[in-house]
Formats: sequence, C-alpha cells, structure tokens
Amino acid sequence: MSETLAGKDAPVTDRRPAIVEVAPRDGLQSIRDPLPTDTKIALIRDLVAAGCRRVEIGSFVSPRAVPQMHDMAEIAAAVLDLPARLMALVPNVRGAERAAGAGIREIGYVFSVSESHNRSNVRQSVADSLDGLGAVAAALPENTRLRVNVATAFDCPFEGTVPLDAVLAATRRAAAIAPEAEIALCDTTGRANPFAVAERFRAAMALPETARSTWAFHGHDTFGQGVANALAAWHAGVPAFDAAAAGLGGCPFAPGATGNTATEDLVFAFNEGGLDTGIDLGKLLDVADRVAALPGGVTGSHLRHVPRERAARAA
Amino acid sequence: MSETLAGKDAPVTDRRPAIVEVAPRDGLQSIRDPLPTDTKIALIRDLVAAGCRRVEIGSFVSPRAVPQMHDMAEIAAAVLDLPARLMALVPNVRGAERAAGAGIREIGYVFSVSESHNRSNVRQSVADSLDGLGAVAAALPENTRLRVNVATAFDCPFEGTVPLDAVLAATRRAAAIAPEAEIALCDTTGRANPFAVAERFRAAMALPETARSTWAFHGHDTFGQGVANALAAWHAGVPAFDAAAAGLGGCPFAPGATGNTATEDLVFAFNEGGLDTGIDLGKLLDVADRVAALPGGVTGSHLRHVPRERAARAA
Repeated sequence: MSETLAGKDAPVTDRRPAIVEVAPRDGLQSIRDPLPTDTKIALIRDLVAAGCRRVEIGSFVSPRAVPQMHDMAEIAAAVLDLPARLMALVPNVRGAERAAGAGIREIGYVFSVSESHNRSNVRQSVADSLDGLGAVAAALPENTRLRVNVATAFDCPFEGTVPLDAVLAATRRAAAIAPEAEIALCDTTGRANPFAVAERFRAAMALPETARSTWAFHGHDTFGQGVANALAAWHAGVPAFDAAAAGLGGCPFAPGATGNTATEDLVFAFNEGGLDTGIDLGKLLDVADRVAALPGGVTGSHLRHVPRERAARAA
Repeated sequence: MSETLAGKDAPVTDRRPAIVEVAPRDGLQSIRDPLPTDTKIALIRDLVAAGCRRVEIGSFVSPRAVPQMHDMAEIAAAVLDLPARLMALVPNVRGAERAAGAGIREIGYVFSVSESHNRSNVRQSVADSLDGLGAVAAALPENTRLRVNVATAFDCPFEGTVPLDAVLAATRRAAAIAPEAEIALCDTTGRANPFAVAERFRAAMALPETARSTWAFHGHDTFGQGVANALAAWHAGVPAFDAAAAGLGGCPFAPGATGNTATEDLVFAFNEGGLDTGIDLGKLLDVADRVAALPGGVTGSHLRHVPRERAARAA
C-alpha cells in the first residue's frame, strides 16, 4: 500500500496506470444513428494525440446488430499508423478474422458471469460464450493480444449482486482457455463498491489459473463510485483501466444509465496523484468537449464542468 | 489495509465510519432566501430518522452575514431531543456562547491554511483566526466538544495547491491550541486527489501535537473525486466524513461549483462494502429528494438519479 502515499512531490512506486480509452467503442455504440466515418477517425486520432496509448476503436460486429460499427475496416485502415495499442471487440471467430484482416493486433471478447445478462447481451448461454472464447483464441494470428471482458463481475441488472464464487469460477475457466489474456473484471452496471472491487480482484489474481494473466478494470460512474472503484483496483494491483472521454455512453431511453467513468475524471486522479498516465489533461478535455457535442450522445463527466483553468492547470 | 478486503460477506475490521450530515449548514447556507424555520427543523429531524447520528445543524453567525441562519436558537430548541450529536459552526466567542446557550454541545470553528481564502471567508488573517480558536476553546462550557475545520488543506481557489508544509504547520498550531478537538482537513474546493488525501492525513496524524486529536474529512465532489477521496481518508485511518444529502451546496452564480459529496453516494460505498454507517439508504434518499426540491438549492448526487429499487435494494 505504499503507493497510497505517493503525492505529486513524492512518488514511491514505479507502477504506472494505463488508461484504455473506450469512447470509440463502448461510447459510440450507444449512439444509434451512424456518425460520419471521418468523425470517428478524427476522434481516435485526437485521443492518441492527447496521449492515449491504448484505444478500443470499435467492434467488428454485424452492421445489422450495431449499425454504428458498419465502417470498422475503413476506420482501422485510417488509424493503424498511430503510436498506440488499438483494440477491437469481436463477438466470434468471424469478427476476429475481420479485425485481424483489418490489421488490428488486439482483440477483445466479452462474456457475462450471469446467464441472464449474457443471453441479453450476446444472445447465447455462458457455456456457448466460453466455447466461443476458445474458438477466438485458437483463431488468433501470431502477435495478436487477447482481452477477455468478464461482464457482470459485480452486479447484474437482472440478477442483482453476482456471487463472488461465480465470478471466480468464470474467471478460472476463461484463464484456462486463454492463459495469457488480459482479463477485465467489468462493473457493467456501475453498482460495484470499492471494497468489493478490491476483494474480487485480489481473489481472482490469486487463482492458480491466472498466474500468467494480466488485468484491467472496466467501470462506470452511475452510482458515483467510478474513480473510487478504479483506485481500489489500482491498489489491489490492477494496472489498466477502461474509461470514456466525456463519460460517453449510457442510453437516452434509460434515465440514470450512464457511460464509462469519464477518462478525464480518472486521469485527474492519477496525474494529480503523481502517477502519470501519459495523457495531457488539457488536450483530453478539448477532445471530451467534442465528444460531448456529438449528436445523440449522453455524457457523464465531472471535470468538463469545472472552469478549464482549474481542471487542467499546470501543476 | 486489511479493511480494503472487507466485502459484505467478510467484514474484517471493527472500525465503523461516521457520517456527519452537513446539509443543514453547509448546504442551506448556499440558499440565499431564508427557508421557513419549520422546513429546516423537519430536515434535521428527517435526517436523524434516516439514521444520521451526527448532524451539523447550522451556524451561529450574524443574520446580516448569513440571513439563512437567523433562526438558529429556534431550530436548536426544536431538535435538542434527537438521538444524535448536533454540531453548530461559530465564527467567534459570541457565536460559541449563543450556541452553548441554545443547548448545543458540539462547536465547529473554521480557519483556512491559505491567507487569501481565510480573508475572503472570515475576513481576518490566519493569525487572528488562530487567536479566535484559542478564545473559543477557552470559552467552551464543560462537556462541549470542539471541531476545528482546517479549510483549504489541499487546494485554494486563489492560491492553487496549498503546500503540505503549510497544512502541517497550521494543523500543529490548531492542535496545540485545542489538543482534544476533532480536526477536519477540508477539501474546500473539491480539487484534492485521493493520493494527496492519504498522504496529508498520514502526515498530520503523525504530528506529536495531534496525539490526542480525532479526525474527519470534509470533501466535495466537484472534480469527481468525492467518494474516492473519502475512502482514501478512511484507509488512512480517518473515521468521520462530512457529506450533504443530495449534495446540496454550491453556488448558483458559479457554474461547476458543487456542494459537499452527496451523503447517499458515500453511504452507498460504505454500506455496500459491509461498513455499516447506521444510515438507512432508502430513507436517506427520500430525504435527499426533499432536499433537492428546496427552492434555490443546487444539488450534485449520483444515487438519486438511478432507479430507486437499484439504489437502495435489500442487500
């Protein structure tokens, strides 16, 4: 816990947090009407220019399922030159092959711990999703990273609190299938609390099956726990954090549903605490302003609403 | 740090967090036009009925300075029977005497570490404020507790980051004057980060002068760090936390200025984490809804905006 003592003047850890910017995927998928391809490309390029070194650029899914993602190959081609780890979500082997064909070298795959959410989200059983993970892992080209998103790892919108044992069993199975994957425990609903985040990561990281796994936390700020949950994960040893510029996400038809924790709120916490994310907060806030202006988007930032010179002043 | 592992199923600490509900003081003072006395009395009684065991009921200041607080004696008389620790803020010996005369047995006093904020807030130098603290401490009746609010302990709206050395020097002086007081390090602007909160509390708690002090954290959620900052203080050993129902506070004339961290957001974090605050979240949310409906109030809650059955469901 010595890193909790790290202030700007006295960093005492060599660990550095990695932000995985997910606005182009988890954020944009909440916007029904497709945005211009150039707008989406500019967003990704702007995020990298602000210092984001990991970006989830979209998902290779059926355009009938998610019309917003109809132009993934074009987007990928336009951003492959960027100095960043670019990830794309896929639902199956076909998506993984399309992503690989488009030059993407980091593939995300999602399944839920809770049966009801998995059926709602990806329209199959958890067992079938785990089979799908095996197929995707087997189909990956050389030098391609795999991220496994373990959704509803804390709370399920249909089933309530998801038992820790179920999360550990699911994590164990996923790690056995893909032992070198990055595993993200996902607070899909934002209802996780910081104590549970710490407890569940510590337990998952202690599983023998996850000895070679790396870790990430995917969180939302819906219940006001976004930054606190991410920092609880950090103190438990998690190095990577999904977040969306301007907190883009949510659903215009579900009051109270909000997007991922705003990248700017989380970057503020780390950067101000002396744990440099590599992201320039002033530049990121400019991007977040443009994200917030996208038609159809729902946002959830705090930092965007304080005077800019206070939010991103020189230290 | 073992308490970070405490989930609902496995509490491993005997410490319990105490919430100090400050909406009746820090919240209401932001509403210019005085509310009916009965409304303010009902708010305090409702908060206690929801399980709040510590409430800051107002400030014994000049009604010319803060018209909202013109009826403090009447309010105090109407709530003295409640099963709660009732605190009132005072600016000087005269205020302390009025509070004591009204039956209040816990007195709050505030000064800022930064000279410019102290002059803006209480219209005197820090040295004069510390003299005032000595006078108030000397004037306290038997069996009366003292809380010292150390404002701008992290960030000053005029001077920026306040140096840790200055905070420690101010804390040392306050503790020497009032060695048994509860000392609140106050994130007056909400710009503190969780790493600084941990660092500054640990340093302040290690001062020889504070050996007999008790501790509290007063925070705001303006920069999205409210819950994270409070939990950082908790893990550093701080047992008490100021918060305002519905996040009442801020200033209608300062966009982005928000009130204290919403009590419901903080209670959610602790209660869900297995650290029972004694507060019934469902009842508190009902009170917070009434607070949010007060004319002239600015609020900042997350939990009020999620479906009620999700916010306060049975565990």
